[in-house]
Amino acid sequence: MIYFDNASTTKIDELALNKYNEVSNNFYYNCSSLHKGGMDSHKLLENARETILNCINGSIGDTLLFCSGATEANNMAFFGMPRKNAKILTSIGEHPSVFTTSKMNNLNVDYVSLDSNGQVDINEYERMVKENKYDFISIMYVNNETGAINDVEKLCSIAKTTNPKCIFHSDCVQAFGKIDVLVDNLGVDAISLSAHKINGPKGIGALYIKKGTHFNPINFGGGQEFNLRSGTENLPAIVAFAEIAKYKVEKLDDNYNEVKKIKNNILSIFNENNFHYKLNGSLDASPYILSLSLCGVKGEVLLHKLEMDDILIGTGSACSSKTADNRILSAMGNSKEEVFGNIRLSFSPENTMEESTFVAKKIIEYANYLRDIKG
Amino acid sequence: MIYFDNASTTKIDELALNKYNEVSNNFYYNCSSLHKGGMDSHKLLENARETILNCINGSIGDTLLFCSGATEANNMAFFGMPRKNAKILTSIGEHPSVFTTSKMNNLNVDYVSLDSNGQVDINEYERMVKENKYDFISIMYVNNETGAINDVEKLCSIAKTTNPKCIFHSDCVQAFGKIDVLVDNLGVDAISLSAHKINGPKGIGALYIKKGTHFNPINFGGGQEFNLRSGTENLPAIVAFAEIAKYKVEKLDDNYNEVKKIKNNILSIFNENNFHYKLNGSLDASPYILSLSLCGVKGEVLLHKLEMDDILIGTGSACSSKTADNRILSAMGNSKEEVFGNIRLSFSPENTMEESTFVAKKIIEYANYLRDIKG
Repeated sequence: MIYFDNASTTKIDELALNKYNEVSNNFYYNCSSLHKGGMDSHKLLENARETILNCINGSIGDTLLFCSGATEANNMAFFGMPRKNAKILTSIGEHPSVFTTSKMNNLNVDYVSLDSNGQVDINEYERMVKENKYDFISIMYVNNETGAINDVEKLCSIAKTTNPKCIFHSDCVQAFGKIDVLVDNLGVDAISLSAHKINGPKGIGALYIKKGTHFNPINFGGGQEFNLRSGTENLPAIVAFAEIAKYKVEKLDDNYNEVKKIKNNILSIFNENNFHYKLNGSLDASPYILSLSLCGVKGEVLLHKLEMDDILIGTGSACSSKTADNRILSAMGNSKEEVFGNIRLSFSPENTMEESTFVAKKIIEYANYLRDIKG
Repeated sequence: MIYFDNASTTKIDELALNKYNEVSNNFYYNCSSLHKGGMDSHKLLENARETILNCINGSIGDTLLFCSGATEANNMAFFGMPRKNAKILTSIGEHPSVFTTSKMNNLNVDYVSLDSNGQVDINEYERMVKENKYDFISIMYVNNETGAINDVEKLCSIAKTTNPKCIFHSDCVQAFGKIDVLVDNLGVDAISLSAHKINGPKGIGALYIKKGTHFNPINFGGGQEFNLRSGTENLPAIVAFAEIAKYKVEKLDDNYNEVKKIKNNILSIFNENNFHYKLNGSLDASPYILSLSLCGVKGEVLLHKLEMDDILIGTGSACSSKTADNRILSAMGNSKEEVFGNIRLSFSPENTMEESTFVAKKIIEYANYLRDIKG
């Protein structure tokens, strides 16, 4: 099986799975229990928190709330934001867990456009920010469908210069463990993280909150996670998340170069074979994601052709894969045909050059075949 | 290590952990992905849903929403309830994930008292229900601190007779897999379940919703779980949950008898030794939980004495263990001294008679010692 759908989810790494098993067997206690089992478990929890805070250059006093995943973290950021009637800005290119959430509960939200590369339109952004002095801004770091990288540092700086009290949140799910996500450099107040996009366990994520930034809880119960996110802590998954996060950050540059070779190899093979494709996003996008529009081909049909050769790819994102249209690709100016012809290849450092060569050739073969029978 | 804190959380069973590993390694795909990996994963998800629905005698058309745990399920029930300005009834004895949640968002809530056994006061309940014709009622099945069992079938019947449109929800976390939880017999519209209380993985739970009952989503994103609970499905944990649920329901009677022997053995040893204790709750309470008040002893001190012999017990519930007072024990009419002298032993079928004998004797020894040095 060749798995090129890693932006959707990844296979858990042995390192993380072993840790999950180890903690499940030896520290199965409730972190809130007063006995030594609970206290030992609580220590592990705090170590995991510190490990991940270190991965993102967090400072003393910063908080990292563990929760069930980035969808929950993004919901917490929007619904837990402390100011009533806040003026909010987000982008048309956000993941549904931000975009759909932003449409709910009568929030007062504006949306900034994307440019043809899939990045937030920086000129429009600057104009909107200066005009509206937003209280809360949420812009993703790396787009999950195209790999487009937003200059979060610059976006955050513009926001803070205009309104120093603005809370800047960034969905960093497709960035963390793949490119540097250093909260001190970026200047952000909150970011969302997910474990299962970096070969960690499913069902665990985190919301980072900078010291001095306050969010309100959006769920209630035992008061875990500093009274902000109740529910018995999923310690095996939390410790496994920390383990894989540390490993991914240590190997970040090596992994980046590996997947870059893979992505470039596919594009080179396309070019050598005069294969007709459109790259969604610039060459500067994250090497972990390759979004293509193949005119004359339906992405979904190609996906099913490829799976017969045990090649698994995506179309758009898994989260939007069952809807007919594609908000993000359309916002980048793609035609209906280009949207329908979309496929997304997304990589992991575990993928090999051989796999990428094989997949590139199969895509050419099947796309040309589909174009021929149509034409 | 003797672990008598199973109401707080349990050690994951090998059966569940093996399933978690198997699914993690072989079905790591995103259930929303269109390729065959995604489709196979989706089938597993639906099988797990059906397995758990079968465990509770669910009918065709009923829904089971997987979520991160019972805290989330209880929050979903309260904040997702479809009627604006609903008149709500719950009890003073609920878990914080119901009780605290009921205090939020300006909900219109009444609270029914507990009797001295820790059950909902049935006369007061009936009077309140007839007077107020509540739209939404949430009463737990088995109390997490005392093991007191509410007659949910009767409570539900009173509610429905008075107002057939009343939505009846029950937190069944300490009941499921331990005593029969059959939604058709109970007549309930929604129940909350948790995996980690029955030797399943942490971080996974479910909200059962009867056909024809509608809840609104309280989080937003990719639209998973019938558009009611977004977030990439935690498939390894979900399948492990179904596996352990099925096993626990199959072994329900055997396990019940095992833990009953354990609980009775402890009480017999106390009685044989003329040990002074107060049982919180009646002898009809769940055999999985034994709540005691030991006058002249601080529960927390006894807990730490016992842990030196590698005996782990609880005080109150883990969720309320770090707060000074105890709402539930106080509501049952306990004095301050009885509240401070509270310990909770909670069992699993994996516990043995030998363990219970050893623990009973150690409790007598240490409690008498603590009483002596005090007296």
